[in-house]
Amino acid sequence: MSKTIEVTELILRDAHQSLMATRMALEDMIPACEDLDNAGYWSLECWGGATYDACIRFLNEDPWERLRTFKKLLPRTPLQMLLRGQNLLGYRHYEDTVVDRFVEKAAENGMDIFRVFDALNDIRNVRRAIKAVKRAGKHAQGTICYTTSPVHTIGGLAELAEQLLDLGCDSICIKDMAALLKPKPAYDLVRAIKESCGEQTLVHVHVHATTGVTLVSLQKAIEAGADIVDTAISSMSLGPGHNPTESLVEMLEGTEYNTRLDKARLLKVKDHFAKIRPRYQEFLSNITGVETEIFESQIPGGMISNMESQLKQQGAADRIREVLAEVPHVRRDAGYPPLVTPSSQIVGTQAVFNVMMGRYKVMTGEFADLMLGYYGACIAPRDQEVVKAAIKHAKKDPVSRRPADLLKPEWDELRAAAIALNGCNGSDEDVLTHAMFPQVAPKFFATRHEGPRNLGKDPAAAKAAAASAPSAAPAAAAVPKGPVNYEVKFNGKAHRVTVTPA
Amino acid sequence: MSKTIEVTELILRDAHQSLMATRMALEDMIPACEDLDNAGYWSLECWGGATYDACIRFLNEDPWERLRTFKKLLPRTPLQMLLRGQNLLGYRHYEDTVVDRFVEKAAENGMDIFRVFDALNDIRNVRRAIKAVKRAGKHAQGTICYTTSPVHTIGGLAELAEQLLDLGCDSICIKDMAALLKPKPAYDLVRAIKESCGEQTLVHVHVHATTGVTLVSLQKAIEAGADIVDTAISSMSLGPGHNPTESLVEMLEGTEYNTRLDKARLLKVKDHFAKIRPRYQEFLSNITGVETEIFESQIPGGMISNMESQLKQQGAADRIREVLAEVPHVRRDAGYPPLVTPSSQIVGTQAVFNVMMGRYKVMTGEFADLMLGYYGACIAPRDQEVVKAAIKHAKKDPVSRRPADLLKPEWDELRAAAIALNGCNGSDEDVLTHAMFPQVAPKFFATRHEGPRNLGKDPAAAKAAAASAPSAAPAAAAVPKGPVNYEVKFNGKAHRVTVTPA
Repeated sequence: MSKTIEVTELILRDAHQSLMATRMALEDMIPACEDLDNAGYWSLECWGGATYDACIRFLNEDPWERLRTFKKLLPRTPLQMLLRGQNLLGYRHYEDTVVDRFVEKAAENGMDIFRVFDALNDIRNVRRAIKAVKRAGKHAQGTICYTTSPVHTIGGLAELAEQLLDLGCDSICIKDMAALLKPKPAYDLVRAIKESCGEQTLVHVHVHATTGVTLVSLQKAIEAGADIVDTAISSMSLGPGHNPTESLVEMLEGTEYNTRLDKARLLKVKDHFAKIRPRYQEFLSNITGVETEIFESQIPGGMISNMESQLKQQGAADRIREVLAEVPHVRRDAGYPPLVTPSSQIVGTQAVFNVMMGRYKVMTGEFADLMLGYYGACIAPRDQEVVKAAIKHAKKDPVSRRPADLLKPEWDELRAAAIALNGCNGSDEDVLTHAMFPQVAPKFFATRHEGPRNLGKDPAAAKAAAASAPSAAPAAAAVPKGPVNYEVKFNGKAHRVTVTPA
Repeated sequence: MSKTIEVTELILRDAHQSLMATRMALEDMIPACEDLDNAGYWSLECWGGATYDACIRFLNEDPWERLRTFKKLLPRTPLQMLLRGQNLLGYRHYEDTVVDRFVEKAAENGMDIFRVFDALNDIRNVRRAIKAVKRAGKHAQGTICYTTSPVHTIGGLAELAEQLLDLGCDSICIKDMAALLKPKPAYDLVRAIKESCGEQTLVHVHVHATTGVTLVSLQKAIEAGADIVDTAISSMSLGPGHNPTESLVEMLEGTEYNTRLDKARLLKVKDHFAKIRPRYQEFLSNITGVETEIFESQIPGGMISNMESQLKQQGAADRIREVLAEVPHVRRDAGYPPLVTPSSQIVGTQAVFNVMMGRYKVMTGEFADLMLGYYGACIAPRDQEVVKAAIKHAKKDPVSRRPADLLKPEWDELRAAAIALNGCNGSDEDVLTHAMFPQVAPKFFATRHEGPRNLGKDPAAAKAAAASAPSAAPAAAAVPKGPVNYEVKFNGKAHRVTVTPA
């Protein structure tokens, strides 16, 4: 008897987030919805992650309206989102009642499956969101961020799965954001979870394709008993994205496993996005092939190009390999956090500073917070010398409590701040938008009436425009010798840092 | 105990043949040779296939000089070539002593491992070449062209392996030129060969990456006992090319298998070709992602773009899906040949004609030859109605003998023709060049003294040139209504075909 492997399609969220900086306009997705909804997917990931931010920051689009539209156009297939636990979709911790409100509103607007994760795998940071999902009667998926280090073990990660199930999770996701999950640990981890949590435990495997090896990992995960896997339609797959849905279908055909996907529908979805993709040429990741060096640095594909551009701004593009080699040191000092938003940016940016200025001569506020426990707990102890430096830099004490416990009830204040804004419609949804993106929301509220912007361009026109633009600037001069000001962009916020060489 | 899986690196031959139309200049490969030679490969495929043709047709480079250069720069690692059996590297059958001479000269100039195949899997077409390789004291690798059809079975393909071993082959290659080998049949076929031929039989697996699933097939082939696999360095991998070497290494790490490849060397090779690749932008395949539709049509990736351009010339670019649907019909009528050079071109071009003109209203000379046995025997009987049409078109009778048996000794004649040419140096190597490419060799001999041409271009300059060129021509008008002349390019030869609609 053949086992059906269920599939979550990522095209509407993580695929375009990973391949084209989350820029795809809703109108470019709508024509594919009927085929997506009838192809036989277990779920369609279509919201959360960076989509909310991108909607209001770049697309002048209300993310809640996007969610409602999906619900209307995808009535048969459960909708799925990615939620960063206590951070929601923003970049700080929110007080518990804000978390409750967000989950409630997302459920009300049509969300069915909530994949909840914490970048540090600190279970205290996902508990409240998971409880809220259960209260809303929706599917709570607890997430293990997959990483490797001298302190991470298969047994330890499986233990985390048990804790997530204790919180009431309906399924467990193994989230491999940097394509680090090789075939053998994929098998071993799924087996360990099934053995410690029970064979009936639903295990869902999310892998990226960056290292070229993770379709094999999916095969092995399936052999170990995984129930659901994530893929993206082939025309929006590979590179820093995901394995192609159609390849998974073919991989399993004729074996003791099968998918229930309709190939004719998939072909139509593929063709649609093959036409759309070239319209976003200017946003496409410049990583198109395979990168196996990230097994060492663990920096997700998208983040590498980010660091490259930070280095370029500082005239040091050629030092990327030094930075990649520095990342594991910074990670060890921080207690081996998994590298995923926001820890990947925090660790990556600090590695850039360490290489450029000397180790911990300059420290970002975020890295100091990470070292001081303000993002939560890591699996291993932090380096005490670096903690001391962080205390000095940030002028605050380390904490060991759950970060959100430091917050006072804030909903009324957040509400008051939002409704005072021009264009805010007074809804809880708008309050949440402003709460999560206080710097972006005011402009969005003010321009929302103009309607969504489609940043896609006719490829021929874009090509002509690019050709008439001046070619790449010559490499900047060597590393500066005197005091110098840097503007560091971090999570979309600009930081000014002045550095005087020692 | 861990089993070492040996690896053949394809970068110097099939990788650039599949990804950039075989255009890479020798000088762009030379800087990587030291690392390639010391990385721990079982062999380096670097000659044969389309490289010979490309050298003299496009690069003004003597292919024999290329071979000698490789031998000098790659002293530690065996060199490997792809040989099309009785066709050598040309597009017709050669008389046996020409085959002997070619193999002898290739061995003398440095070739170590000869992968010998016939497009139809007709063992009579590989026997002479295999015997010649053995006589030269070199490694003869017998090849099974992998294909699927209602008449192909795992048992039948394994039986072919037995016949190849009977001829004295040192190893067996499963050659999956169109990325059709799914994980399960990969396992089953390797197992069947090992069981029928003995576990000690060396099995070498060659797969392309086009369908996105074949790294999993390599994993399964290895689990079934495969000894050697083909991959290409990551910066020249995927798409219609091959699986990335580095991903294979990572796939096996920590399992009961390992490779003996040196990752630091691989990284240097990768970096080198990452810099070279953009120089050949204009030759890069426009298939970059995954194509799973070819499980139906079986047309290799490179051939699809070929057919697309044939259709475009005829103002019918939108009919590609019809053509792909026609291919299986043509293949059935021809007795289910595997589709690989030259059968892929023959069947593909006939499918284009069938769609454009009606089934077999127009027939290429090559397709008639295929139907009449002039390329050898296929596994299944041919359609008798189509055979009759072929007899009428070609005005010749079907044959059942080995095609080369129809040929008279031809070496002296070939020699006389070659040495009469301006610039021919009188060597057997030059005679072979002219014998295989009689239309191209004269010009090559005449211009050889000018030295090799490097068709690579600085990407920035190429971009500017492309932008100033007029954009793509508007789609041509509809299918012509009256008599019309077509120029059909086939194996580099132009054919004129006049068609009057019925």
